[in-house]
Amino acid sequence: MTIGDAPNKGAAQLQSEEAIIQRYLAPLAAGFPGALGLKDDCAFAAPSPGHEFVFKTDAIAEGVHFLPDDPPADIGWKALAVNVSDLAAKGARPVGYLMSLAFPSAPTEFWMAEFARGLGEAQAALGIHLMGGDTDRRPGPLSITPMVVGEVPAGRMVRRGAARAGDVICVSGTLGDAALGLRLRQEPGLARGWGLDAGRAGSLVGRFLRPQPRLGLSAPVLAHAQASMDVSDGLMKDLGRMCRASGVGAIVEHALLPVSVAFARVRQVDEAATAAALFAGDDYEILTAVSPDRVAAFLAGARDAGTIVTRIGRFTANGDVVLHDQAGQVMPLSATGWDHF
Amino acid sequence: MTIGDAPNKGAAQLQSEEAIIQRYLAPLAAGFPGALGLKDDCAFAAPSPGHEFVFKTDAIAEGVHFLPDDPPADIGWKALAVNVSDLAAKGARPVGYLMSLAFPSAPTEFWMAEFARGLGEAQAALGIHLMGGDTDRRPGPLSITPMVVGEVPAGRMVRRGAARAGDVICVSGTLGDAALGLRLRQEPGLARGWGLDAGRAGSLVGRFLRPQPRLGLSAPVLAHAQASMDVSDGLMKDLGRMCRASGVGAIVEHALLPVSVAFARVRQVDEAATAAALFAGDDYEILTAVSPDRVAAFLAGARDAGTIVTRIGRFTANGDVVLHDQAGQVMPLSATGWDHF
Repeated sequence: MTIGDAPNKGAAQLQSEEAIIQRYLAPLAAGFPGALGLKDDCAFAAPSPGHEFVFKTDAIAEGVHFLPDDPPADIGWKALAVNVSDLAAKGARPVGYLMSLAFPSAPTEFWMAEFARGLGEAQAALGIHLMGGDTDRRPGPLSITPMVVGEVPAGRMVRRGAARAGDVICVSGTLGDAALGLRLRQEPGLARGWGLDAGRAGSLVGRFLRPQPRLGLSAPVLAHAQASMDVSDGLMKDLGRMCRASGVGAIVEHALLPVSVAFARVRQVDEAATAAALFAGDDYEILTAVSPDRVAAFLAGARDAGTIVTRIGRFTANGDVVLHDQAGQVMPLSATGWDHF
Repeated sequence: MTIGDAPNKGAAQLQSEEAIIQRYLAPLAAGFPGALGLKDDCAFAAPSPGHEFVFKTDAIAEGVHFLPDDPPADIGWKALAVNVSDLAAKGARPVGYLMSLAFPSAPTEFWMAEFARGLGEAQAALGIHLMGGDTDRRPGPLSITPMVVGEVPAGRMVRRGAARAGDVICVSGTLGDAALGLRLRQEPGLARGWGLDAGRAGSLVGRFLRPQPRLGLSAPVLAHAQASMDVSDGLMKDLGRMCRASGVGAIVEHALLPVSVAFARVRQVDEAATAAALFAGDDYEILTAVSPDRVAAFLAGARDAGTIVTRIGRFTANGDVVLHDQAGQVMPLSATGWDHF
């Protein structure tokens, strides 16, 4: 904002779908020829030679996936990031997306400009372009439904259900940060009780507001992973899904679960919160099954891509998913402070 | 329902997303290998050799695009049909779709079974398969957001913005029936005032509840149309969009607008309603610009596909969209009883 701008500049509401599309969304489609500047009814695209497309849709809604006062630029970022995270887990490269927007009332110019800015930042960071979409006014929470398209070499999409007994369980980054960040968004006073300075509290909140899809892992996953999926609903729940889809079980070593410095700090004063966070959602890390003879290459590939990956256990023939303590004993999940499994 | 069924069978609510997916949606994905039985996070697909994909998303929501008491099988049908209509207009062949469902409360078994049945009927009629999706519980109206994927020979998608001055304006089927059908859904007593027997009233309501995408026109459109789009927001509004995108104007001959027998019957007693209906929405007919030397071939191709197509005017170099009466005089739209343009 420059000097002289009215203080409520941008507060005007955008009543016309045409204005929303042409002013704020069409620039996001400018880099994609098949989007036709959002001036057609449909978009078109073909995968690169020898490749096929990978498809995913995950809606985010106010009050469910983001808070009413989350910054609109962060909402735009998140809508794209949580979908691109799935592409990364499949070994795919992002290509484009359609987006269906449902507004309970006409958005303000400010909201729309900021939302589009966040989308634009995500597009630039993730290498994806708007291809088309649909904008509606209807009651209910603000909802954003992107459908993302990525590409993989034909026949090579990495599946969820292909883990084998004996494969190593690996997970990227750190777990639980976003769940703590959400707690801090809802109750900022917690930071003091948790002994976090502004920087550490901010890093946790940032994990909630701006999830970072692990796109750097896409190539190592494609090259080395036996099975892969992203962790969006909590590690144990998503690992359980991978096990059921694969017909295997898993042993997770509790002491190996990767956590951030901020998370470790909170754990010293609030064990229950951190245990819950480990099994809550919004991590957008990547969970993989890797054959023992490929683990070294996978970890090296991840390191080259700037992403830390940690071995946290192994898949078993037995269908159960269990947590082991450092003595190798099964830990009831209740012993971790988490009873919602 | 067979004898012995409890009268409230199917009234139980489906609390689990897993049950909704595996019991009702997975069977709709069975014919599509890249859907992986809806057991993965993503789906994959490639266009046929020499083809590219065409993408479209249009959400439908309760109270906006369908009525709360519309039969759930018809809602399922409509969600797919209104999107496939766009593919037909682009000269594309349907391939698959993702679908994002937002439920304000857990659906009943009956609702979900009927909704899935309608989707299945649409899939069989339209040659398309469920590839994946997302199911959420959130406040607000029941919303269904399909993203459909079709294919066309590479580089051949028929555009909206390619009409030229001198091209003939053609439209498929009959206009205004669905708008009258909606009026009859809202006020069934109108049928008597309009002098419609049950069969004719039912045919109008059917146009509203179960739009029929003109897929048979896909090949003739691809072969002969200069520009094409579907008519979903009313003829004059959508024609205006085609003109703006093409930088041309249009003259529509009012007397040539194709209407059904039932519509003509209503017009005898309620001119205002029928005029409005001609410019209201939900037709899902196909509007094309056809070069004069291709019109005969286009009409013949449409006839072979079992679809009537009518010439209703021509595109002009002047940027205006006007309606002509039988004397060739410009009719103000208000003279048709329609003042919402």
